[in-house]
Amino acid sequence: MIGLFDSGVGGLTVVRALLEKAPQADFVYLGDTARTPYGNKSPETVERYALEDAEYVIRHGAELVIVACNTASALALPKLQESFPNIPFIGVVKPAAQAAAALGGDKVGVIGTKATVNSGIYEKVVRKYAPGAKVIQKACPLFVPLVEEGMLDDQVTKIMIRRYLTPLRQANVSSLILGCTHYPFLKSSIQRFMGKKVKVIDSANVVIQQAMEEYPALFLPKQDPKQLIAFTDTSSNSDKLASSWLGRPVKGIKAELAPEPVRV
Amino acid sequence: MIGLFDSGVGGLTVVRALLEKAPQADFVYLGDTARTPYGNKSPETVERYALEDAEYVIRHGAELVIVACNTASALALPKLQESFPNIPFIGVVKPAAQAAAALGGDKVGVIGTKATVNSGIYEKVVRKYAPGAKVIQKACPLFVPLVEEGMLDDQVTKIMIRRYLTPLRQANVSSLILGCTHYPFLKSSIQRFMGKKVKVIDSANVVIQQAMEEYPALFLPKQDPKQLIAFTDTSSNSDKLASSWLGRPVKGIKAELAPEPVRV
Repeated sequence: MIGLFDSGVGGLTVVRALLEKAPQADFVYLGDTARTPYGNKSPETVERYALEDAEYVIRHGAELVIVACNTASALALPKLQESFPNIPFIGVVKPAAQAAAALGGDKVGVIGTKATVNSGIYEKVVRKYAPGAKVIQKACPLFVPLVEEGMLDDQVTKIMIRRYLTPLRQANVSSLILGCTHYPFLKSSIQRFMGKKVKVIDSANVVIQQAMEEYPALFLPKQDPKQLIAFTDTSSNSDKLASSWLGRPVKGIKAELAPEPVRV
Repeated sequence: MIGLFDSGVGGLTVVRALLEKAPQADFVYLGDTARTPYGNKSPETVERYALEDAEYVIRHGAELVIVACNTASALALPKLQESFPNIPFIGVVKPAAQAAAALGGDKVGVIGTKATVNSGIYEKVVRKYAPGAKVIQKACPLFVPLVEEGMLDDQVTKIMIRRYLTPLRQANVSSLILGCTHYPFLKSSIQRFMGKKVKVIDSANVVIQQAMEEYPALFLPKQDPKQLIAFTDTSSNSDKLASSWLGRPVKGIKAELAPEPVRV
């Protein structure tokens, strides 16, 4: 079984990519809607939340965990791997950085939450695979609430796209990594603003591709696949978003996280 | 000692109102920045968080708890009072509703988070004090992220004010309750859009006024006042916001909440 988790509903873009390529795979997805968003919280808090999320999907049978959240991938991957040494973890940062490096070009743009951008992880990983590349980052903190409000094709969203992305367009980046799993919902508007020459990289797709290459057996079709979607805070809104994004009815189950160690 | 809590930094508007009227009072403020925002989460989750927040300020000496968060006031007040029967709780809903009722007028506007608006609490409480009044509500989910981004006087904020408030202006409300502690930061823009005739009610001021009337002894000046500001997730951003809002340097201390009962 494949485990996936995210700070909320954004990681369902990764589930969508999974279902496109392996509609009959077993998976368990956890969205931490009770504590969403992660992107403006501290590294320590994000790390703690990621450990609890991972524990949940592993407890429910995950043999591989896809960290479907850029913020958690940026801040918590080493700690996750250390805490669960027998489970492989794949984050969204490395596959996206590799995809950007593979495209060549000397300037790579990255957009993400404040926490992801402040971590500097994309710069580090892109330059590992493309040592000469210049990485230009921009935090886009309003994109998540705009997506969650469903304002995908709205005047306000267009203004914010222009405002956040103008420096990247002016810098003539050759590719742009969507470093947050909410952002694929704005992909066509972002592509339009950046122009056809800029290759926009959706981390949801590339992470599923990498996971399938490394762990093909987990993606084989099952006769009666177990496909579980859980949220720490269930609401009709997350079900509605999930159903519309995945194109089928979703009724999220209520996830109970294991209690944290005493912190009084 | 006075206790106050909020889902994050917004409740500092209540602390600001407190410091204006009683600069030498003892208080402890908790902002639950690790789980902010509350306004789009479920009633069960908001209730659970409010109990933990209240426990923290009571553990630190609070003899009165001001629930400086409209969402928690709307959803958790009965449970809080039941769980801590010896501590008085004052929420922001009742004082704001009473202030609106006292102004007269047959149409009262209320803006707040989705959770506050969906709870219907303002309608219920306003009509308790002004039985004939019509209450017109509107959820303004983007206001919180806009305020947290410091976009107080921004083109995008003006567009959203126009979009959210046009129905209230068209309905000719005579007063408008700012039913979220973040909204006072937009008060002048909101007042400008609604027009001079509309009385804009800031729940931060009215809740402090009511608390002072009911518990005057707690607001007396102390010689060496204990004034504690704590966050569940400390970051330079919350310190920066708090310092600018309170007009003095703030270094938030890291709050450790008591562990929840086992929920596996």
